[in-house]
Amino acid sequence: MSIKAYRTLQQVEVIVGYKTYIDLVAELVKGKEVISSGMMKEVDRCQKAIEIALQKRSVAVISSGDPGIYGMAGVVLELALKMGVQEAIDIEIIPGITSANAAAASLGAPLMHDFAVISLSDLLTPWETIVQRLEYAAQGDFVTVLYNPVSKKRTEQIKEAQRIFLKYKPGNTPVGIVRNAKRGNEEVTVSTLAEFLKHPIDMFTVVLIGNNRTFSSAELMITPRGYSL
Amino acid sequence: MSIKAYRTLQQVEVIVGYKTYIDLVAELVKGKEVISSGMMKEVDRCQKAIEIALQKRSVAVISSGDPGIYGMAGVVLELALKMGVQEAIDIEIIPGITSANAAAASLGAPLMHDFAVISLSDLLTPWETIVQRLEYAAQGDFVTVLYNPVSKKRTEQIKEAQRIFLKYKPGNTPVGIVRNAKRGNEEVTVSTLAEFLKHPIDMFTVVLIGNNRTFSSAELMITPRGYSL
Repeated sequence: MSIKAYRTLQQVEVIVGYKTYIDLVAELVKGKEVISSGMMKEVDRCQKAIEIALQKRSVAVISSGDPGIYGMAGVVLELALKMGVQEAIDIEIIPGITSANAAAASLGAPLMHDFAVISLSDLLTPWETIVQRLEYAAQGDFVTVLYNPVSKKRTEQIKEAQRIFLKYKPGNTPVGIVRNAKRGNEEVTVSTLAEFLKHPIDMFTVVLIGNNRTFSSAELMITPRGYSL
Repeated sequence: MSIKAYRTLQQVEVIVGYKTYIDLVAELVKGKEVISSGMMKEVDRCQKAIEIALQKRSVAVISSGDPGIYGMAGVVLELALKMGVQEAIDIEIIPGITSANAAAASLGAPLMHDFAVISLSDLLTPWETIVQRLEYAAQGDFVTVLYNPVSKKRTEQIKEAQRIFLKYKPGNTPVGIVRNAKRGNEEVTVSTLAEFLKHPIDMFTVVLIGNNRTFSSAELMITPRGYSL
């Protein structure tokens, strides 16, 4: 967590967030008014936060990672615009460390070169759009970070992603799997494009696929930036 | 800066880094041994840090943003592997907030959906590779973040990037320009793909090009995640 986010959580009167994420900052929210709710209630939560801000009370909406990466920042801003209150309240987005960056640090240095981030969740995005992005990311030789690779109901997308990348990349391309990146109970695995589906992957996992220069050594995954060493 | 990075800088005996970045943490390095040097000396600095660590002294190599994104993490790990000392020293990569995330927070919420990060610097990467990635990022409709868009000697690449994106995207696609993201003297501009080169862009700037759903409103740049509001 950034120092700025920490201080903000200390200062605000009300904290709004998904239960699981509130639990991660339990120490910080002690004694504050907390509005938490389950998954799929994102829009309701953000609306609530805006209503509280309109009452001139200070409120923080928490996201895991970075609220600006597939997080709550966009929903809050879109709702404020739609309600026509973006001038009436003072909204600040505090950036954070998203899973791609956290997982990369645990794997070594896979994101030293150009990269793409793609969510495999087709809840809010047509699957054809996702497939197209996987095709272009693989052909462009981007190091590629897959968010939401699998959920309880959604297990086929990661197989299709593997199939697409194998069209353009050798089976020995390094693939990193990081579960609960930097959350204390982290699990880190370095595998290959051909083999990585043998390892457990769930909704708390991100998958990083190397570019054509990424290598693995001593359980590290490294993409050279290109310096002569 | 993350709490973890802050505490680490407090704890280590020696700090190694590029002068400009050392100056940004002047308060924290007071009274410590500091080894700083100019640009283009990255490999030398990392080598020095490894030598200090081999003497059983604690040392931090600092990068701006996230050391794992075009930063020093890869150089340190590659050098340690090459020197065969990766087992002898304990290397930890501490993730941070890279310019893409920092700039996005200042622009509103442009990175709510799949995105690509591309450096336009051809010092270490063939220009043809960069052109190809620009082509794929534009066709894949990734929100695209351009690092190192311009330097004193390198001013044509950003024009070529604009030309490539205009092949696939309308001129009114929102483009965000952020200079010195979250460094206190930040400058934020929201423009369009057709017009953004009219604004000053230098080596301290990142450029964010929206996807086909990104919109700008009230000086904000927002990419909808897809929730019904």
